[in-house]
Amino acid sequence: MRVAIIGAAGFLGRKLAARLAAKGRLAGRRVEALSLLDNVVPAAPPGAPFPVACLAGDVTDSALLARAIPPGTDAVFHLAAVVSAQAEAEFDLGLRANLDGTRAVLEAARAAGGSPAFVFTSSVAAYGGPLPEVVGDDTILTPQNSYGAQKAMGELLVADYARRGFVRGVAIRLPTIIVRPGRPNRAASGFASAIVREPLLGLDTVCPVPPELAMWVASPLLAVDWLLHAASLDPAALGARRSVNPPGISASMGEIAAALAGIAGNEAAGRIRWERDPAIERIVAAWPARFDAARARELGFAQQPPVAEIIRAFIAEDLGPTRAERGL
Amino acid sequence: MRVAIIGAAGFLGRKLAARLAAKGRLAGRRVEALSLLDNVVPAAPPGAPFPVACLAGDVTDSALLARAIPPGTDAVFHLAAVVSAQAEAEFDLGLRANLDGTRAVLEAARAAGGSPAFVFTSSVAAYGGPLPEVVGDDTILTPQNSYGAQKAMGELLVADYARRGFVRGVAIRLPTIIVRPGRPNRAASGFASAIVREPLLGLDTVCPVPPELAMWVASPLLAVDWLLHAASLDPAALGARRSVNPPGISASMGEIAAALAGIAGNEAAGRIRWERDPAIERIVAAWPARFDAARARELGFAQQPPVAEIIRAFIAEDLGPTRAERGL
Repeated sequence: MRVAIIGAAGFLGRKLAARLAAKGRLAGRRVEALSLLDNVVPAAPPGAPFPVACLAGDVTDSALLARAIPPGTDAVFHLAAVVSAQAEAEFDLGLRANLDGTRAVLEAARAAGGSPAFVFTSSVAAYGGPLPEVVGDDTILTPQNSYGAQKAMGELLVADYARRGFVRGVAIRLPTIIVRPGRPNRAASGFASAIVREPLLGLDTVCPVPPELAMWVASPLLAVDWLLHAASLDPAALGARRSVNPPGISASMGEIAAALAGIAGNEAAGRIRWERDPAIERIVAAWPARFDAARARELGFAQQPPVAEIIRAFIAEDLGPTRAERGL
Repeated sequence: MRVAIIGAAGFLGRKLAARLAAKGRLAGRRVEALSLLDNVVPAAPPGAPFPVACLAGDVTDSALLARAIPPGTDAVFHLAAVVSAQAEAEFDLGLRANLDGTRAVLEAARAAGGSPAFVFTSSVAAYGGPLPEVVGDDTILTPQNSYGAQKAMGELLVADYARRGFVRGVAIRLPTIIVRPGRPNRAASGFASAIVREPLLGLDTVCPVPPELAMWVASPLLAVDWLLHAASLDPAALGARRSVNPPGISASMGEIAAALAGIAGNEAAGRIRWERDPAIERIVAAWPARFDAARARELGFAQQPPVAEIIRAFIAEDLGPTRAERGL
């Protein structure tokens, strides 16, 4: 089968490509070709047992997308996005990348023919406004940030393209993914990774929200599991609802700091300075921190293990490369 | 104040313009200028006590929209849409008119400055999928037709433009409006008007759904009341949720036929032939037929009176003109 990853230079895209290269299979079939597209040239995963095409350019460029998603493509992963704090700061850019971009990728998948699997990374940021204590599969989406509004529109597009048979579409509302390796990005939620990553690198960091603020989180490992599982789903199992809240976990920043102290010692956790930033807090406090992910479990999405395991996996897999990348 | 109506040649647009002309005021202020835009030249309402500019062209044409919504505009009513059956039959056209169009109108309102009131006509077609018996203000939107998906995306755009202060935006999820005068259009729900209008004109008509199928309906009179009320609302009263389910009524096609028989006799109601059309039924049966419009009532939206009053108002206001238009 032929696979395309749009947004392949981001950290989830890289991990997804690496996993496909390591397994060589998707949805029970052998991967025969992989296209990677991003606004910078994505790196081909080392040791891939199939040819990899690496393309760079704008996510709204239809000619480029037609090369990334040629006829015969069986699965498209659309991860490209302008992240939350940037979409809030640069409204027009966010709308263009996140709404027009998603539409252009869907159009390319439709033009490729054969109704490919189409996995879209939505976000818990699509929720907002007055919310129940525990968000369920029936909770209304009332986003209170532009990134979330654009993701919610992307979900509607994916669902309608799927309903019409253009793609076999699924949207996964990803929790905040921790621990992101490398340098901080412009996601408003970046601190949730930084409070683990920076102390482990021996660096000080600021947590801009209070310790009791909880977030719905998941590891990159589980996020990749979910994306692969989504591409394998029978569309009939999804019925009329094409968006899924996967089973992440709820963790307060204090709990994450305590788990870090348990693994790396109090000195590491002491490198977190708690200093509120109202602009960041306003965005992330509006996101739901607890979900009943009943439907995702029924659909076979794996359960995220506790925070300590997330930190251990980061140390095992990403701390070394991150240290090297940061020149530490 | 300056007012613009986009989609002003449609039947609701014409009634809205006529009401503004008759009242001369909106939100407690005197109307000083009115712009009307549609894809055909809209007619200026007779006897308007203010200048009326009538413009024709494409709803995605920014230069044209800038003329319709000049700086200093205080209120924009955006009613232009490709309707449900057409948006289902012509996917790309629907997306262009209903999504790109709404975005272009919002951009024009934003460019005009001063955060004008922005009233967007969404639809109950934005709901679908498994639904509770009674739809509430918290019910999730899972549209099962392209028109509804495009309206739901329009709501998200309006809410985000409003949240950012570009407009004082409100979306009204209009029920099926009966009785539409004139000729049938390509709304899937057109029969709900036709089963009243055509018999009153002495013509036979087909109802493509069974008598027990209920719909959520409202009269054009109430719809215009709601649009005017929406333009007068204090945005603070709306809070995080910018979409409103107004208080229409639930009526089965059998109840509408019985009300018609009560007013115009059994002979009139006998002109309805009941003949199911699965394509139409599939679309409208997915729309919710009953709402708890608690929030709209709190916000001061008027309650729709029963069906018999809707029919009597149609006979008093629209039957004569419709008869003339149809050459009967």
